[in-house]
Amino acid sequence: MIERIEDLQCRGYKIIQDTEGFCFGMDAVLLSEFTRTVIQKNSRICDLCTGNGIIPILLAAKTEAEELIGIEIQERAADLAKRSVKLNQEEKRIKILQEDIRQIDQLGLEEYFDVVSANPPYMNAGIKNQNEAKLIARHEITCTFQDVASAAYRILKYKGKFCLVHRPNRLAELIVTLKKNQLEPKRLRMVHSYADRDANLFLLEAVKGGRSQMTVEPPLVVYQKPGQYTEELNRIYGRLQN
Amino acid sequence: MIERIEDLQCRGYKIIQDTEGFCFGMDAVLLSEFTRTVIQKNSRICDLCTGNGIIPILLAAKTEAEELIGIEIQERAADLAKRSVKLNQEEKRIKILQEDIRQIDQLGLEEYFDVVSANPPYMNAGIKNQNEAKLIARHEITCTFQDVASAAYRILKYKGKFCLVHRPNRLAELIVTLKKNQLEPKRLRMVHSYADRDANLFLLEAVKGGRSQMTVEPPLVVYQKPGQYTEELNRIYGRLQN
Repeated sequence: MIERIEDLQCRGYKIIQDTEGFCFGMDAVLLSEFTRTVIQKNSRICDLCTGNGIIPILLAAKTEAEELIGIEIQERAADLAKRSVKLNQEEKRIKILQEDIRQIDQLGLEEYFDVVSANPPYMNAGIKNQNEAKLIARHEITCTFQDVASAAYRILKYKGKFCLVHRPNRLAELIVTLKKNQLEPKRLRMVHSYADRDANLFLLEAVKGGRSQMTVEPPLVVYQKPGQYTEELNRIYGRLQN
Repeated sequence: MIERIEDLQCRGYKIIQDTEGFCFGMDAVLLSEFTRTVIQKNSRICDLCTGNGIIPILLAAKTEAEELIGIEIQERAADLAKRSVKLNQEEKRIKILQEDIRQIDQLGLEEYFDVVSANPPYMNAGIKNQNEAKLIARHEITCTFQDVASAAYRILKYKGKFCLVHRPNRLAELIVTLKKNQLEPKRLRMVHSYADRDANLFLLEAVKGGRSQMTVEPPLVVYQKPGQYTEELNRIYGRLQN
């Protein structure tokens, strides 16, 4: 088991990663940026499928949110997350719970949160990955998207916001699942590696009990040429560095 | 009643427009281009809510489709469409039917088409527009999107393709309606007036009986600066001109 402490380049915040487990990627950075804009002072945030806690830690660094809870089913990842919270001296604002979101009703968190975020497993349970930790992080083994949407619905306040990142191949299916759970898609942003390529991620904000009316924001383009970020990506990573 | 004959700048094709009625716009051009790519020699095409017949006429000009049927409920628009078909000497390939798509079962067209296209009314029946012809063309007075999807389902062959243009504010709702009608969203393209603006249209291809798996294509950007089309738009309009 090899661990590495990574500097998040954001007001001195750090994260502990298991180099053999699932390491955070650009999707976590983009989701935290997309979510940041709906967070207010005193907001209560919950991150589902939090893994090593990268999202609550980035949101703690970027916002004045009052309380951030990260829920992770895997013991090893939850342990890394707890240690990262300590490392950043954020034990007061961030709590990590090692729990199964399918049993979220037992945590006494109904209608508690203003914002819920999730970077859930992208793939259906079909194809298998090399090791178990990565398998659970990437495939819907321990929870399906329906489980995630249902949990988000239960813990969000009325009109609370659910922000997620996922893959475009599942966009239609996820929209149906969200609406079934009374989470109304309101704001969608496609992420393209290059301006002339198919999207490889999307960011979506749904509102609990919202009415059916959505906005599709400008495309988020990552590279202007190989190895060179667009201005917006530089700004997003630059904002991490102030 | 003032009429105008417009040159489509595409192999000599023309269209008769009622300058007081609903004139075709960029959405029709973009939809015909998006639909063109799925049409093969010998394809049978049906355009629902065809208005003055702009879509079947553009598709006749652009493809080798064998048979094109346009269905329009309004007498005046259907009459314009029929006369445009004659003007272009396309009576053999293009038929215009003045019919109500809510009674499509009575036309004997079940599972007849390879491709169905639609540029349906964008707005819910709420707000009113100035004259009746424009009202029916723009608002869901004589048919809702559910009526359009249901008609498309009935007349498409199994695995046939339904191509449509619509407004992003209704994307989530339309995806749900399509899936309810067993029209699976497969290919989505957002249209933005400028690269840094919210989308103002989307193009979507759904497949009858398709499996849940979709692709989001690169954004289609209209202008690079005020009054100046992007290279792709010039190419689309340029293609009309050869």
